Amino acid sequence: MKSKKKPLILITNDDGIFASGIQHLAKAMISLGDVYVVAPDQPQSGMGHAVTIRQIIRAHRSSFSVKVKEAYCCSGTPVDCVKLALNILLPARPDIIVSGINHGSNASVNVIYSGTMSAAVEGALEKIPSVGFSLLDFSPDANFNACVPVAQRVVKNVLKHGLPEGVCLNVNIPKLPLKKIKGIRYCKQAKGHWAEGFEKRTDPHGGNYYWMSGQYVLEDNREDADENALAAGYVSVVPVHADLTDYNTLKKLNAWSSEI
Amino acid sequence: MKSKKKPLILITNDDGIFASGIQHLAKAMISLGDVYVVAPDQPQSGMGHAVTIRQIIRAHRSSFSVKVKEAYCCSGTPVDCVKLALNILLPARPDIIVSGINHGSNASVNVIYSGTMSAAVEGALEKIPSVGFSLLDFSPDANFNACVPVAQRVVKNVLKHGLPEGVCLNVNIPKLPLKKIKGIRYCKQAKGHWAEGFEKRTDPHGGNYYWMSGQYVLEDNREDADENALAAGYVSVVPVHADLTDYNTLKKLNAWSSEI
Repeated sequence: MKSKKKPLILITNDDGIFASGIQHLAKAMISLGDVYVVAPDQPQSGMGHAVTIRQIIRAHRSSFSVKVKEAYCCSGTPVDCVKLALNILLPARPDIIVSGINHGSNASVNVIYSGTMSAAVEGALEKIPSVGFSLLDFSPDANFNACVPVAQRVVKNVLKHGLPEGVCLNVNIPKLPLKKIKGIRYCKQAKGHWAEGFEKRTDPHGGNYYWMSGQYVLEDNREDADENALAAGYVSVVPVHADLTDYNTLKKLNAWSSEI
Repeated sequence: MKSKKKPLILITNDDGIFASGIQHLAKAMISLGDVYVVAPDQPQSGMGHAVTIRQIIRAHRSSFSVKVKEAYCCSGTPVDCVKLALNILLPARPDIIVSGINHGSNASVNVIYSGTMSAAVEGALEKIPSVGFSLLDFSPDANFNACVPVAQRVVKNVLKHGLPEGVCLNVNIPKLPLKKIKGIRYCKQAKGHWAEGFEKRTDPHGGNYYWMSGQYVLEDNREDADENALAAGYVSVVPVHADLTDYNTLKKLNAWSSEI
């Protein structure tokens, strides 16, 4: 078995290449394969599945605190990073794509706003097993120590079992010391939404502008909804795909008129 | 019935407030209710479900070619436009949100890259019936004449039947004269992906940069997959929700270890 090729692991994120979370993810992955980093050159939180089609994209070799094979920073979004890595930057197709570790939760509906998870979804669309990791602490100096063994365990499971084509995992980690984490719970995306509040301000020239703020509202009491697993002290793992079809509603729509 | 309140209709898009598509959508809606427009002040194609959280957002009253109640242009993404409209700009909660008409297809996996559809998904998360419209012609001077009666028919159906909470519609319209369109087909999101090709260029200062390009690859031969309905001359209508959980895979994951 000595000659078995090590897996090629692509790491990206949405907090930018110099965020603490991606450095801890690299630390976690370094013993599991040949690690390449392609990550945004600045924070790209909340970018969702945005792609850069009207502007140019740049990518450069970057310094990186963990001794990976190669690290690149990219001017684009997390999804751009994945596309550019697969098409231009990597020496071969990766065996797995890991994204994060995000500073802050991507549980529940946050998955659709999240650049971290959109990078994983893009990997799934490319038929590469992909995992997004997030810690429930958005502080820039969050403590990622417990996340390292969690990420290793999940990635070992994915490398062992594989994932169905087009499916990635959304892994959220509670803000707890490792020994207080109860284990992994396989979950559904919790129902909920963001109740927005905008803050209106006036600039020094008299013009009005707004800051988006808001509060998350959970609308789900199922034990295996990710938010509730996290609250109970578990790591939540939700299988995510890019098919947004609501099949239940489709059955009902077929009773609607098909005339124009 | 004379005293019955007219529905309040919010219109947005991702091609920007001065695009031809949104003007045609306003023309289509003006006879159906009280129309308000809140749309980006510049093109925001490919923005996915991006939100503006690290920058300020501005919104101003805007001129508009159709005589709507009020029109605003906004510096943010399509999702920002919906959030700002609901929280700040509109006099009341809309009865329906319509987005588009997009210059270019949002069928199949394009739904997750599309700002037009993300605005509709955001409406659905806010529990407001929402519809995104797209014409299979990305030209700035595309002919939207056939889209006007299509949009009216779909919106009348939605106002009549309602939509389940959290569900919006992804409506794509073939590039055909109205009399050649065969009707509406209620569809699934077709399986497919974008095979990217990046074009590498060198700037006048010797630096390298990339343009994203790419070709859509259809991987679906089901008659009721949206791409195939469109190719057969139908308007495709896909019910879309924001629950990305892949329930089939979830059953399999429960056989995985839950230990860290």
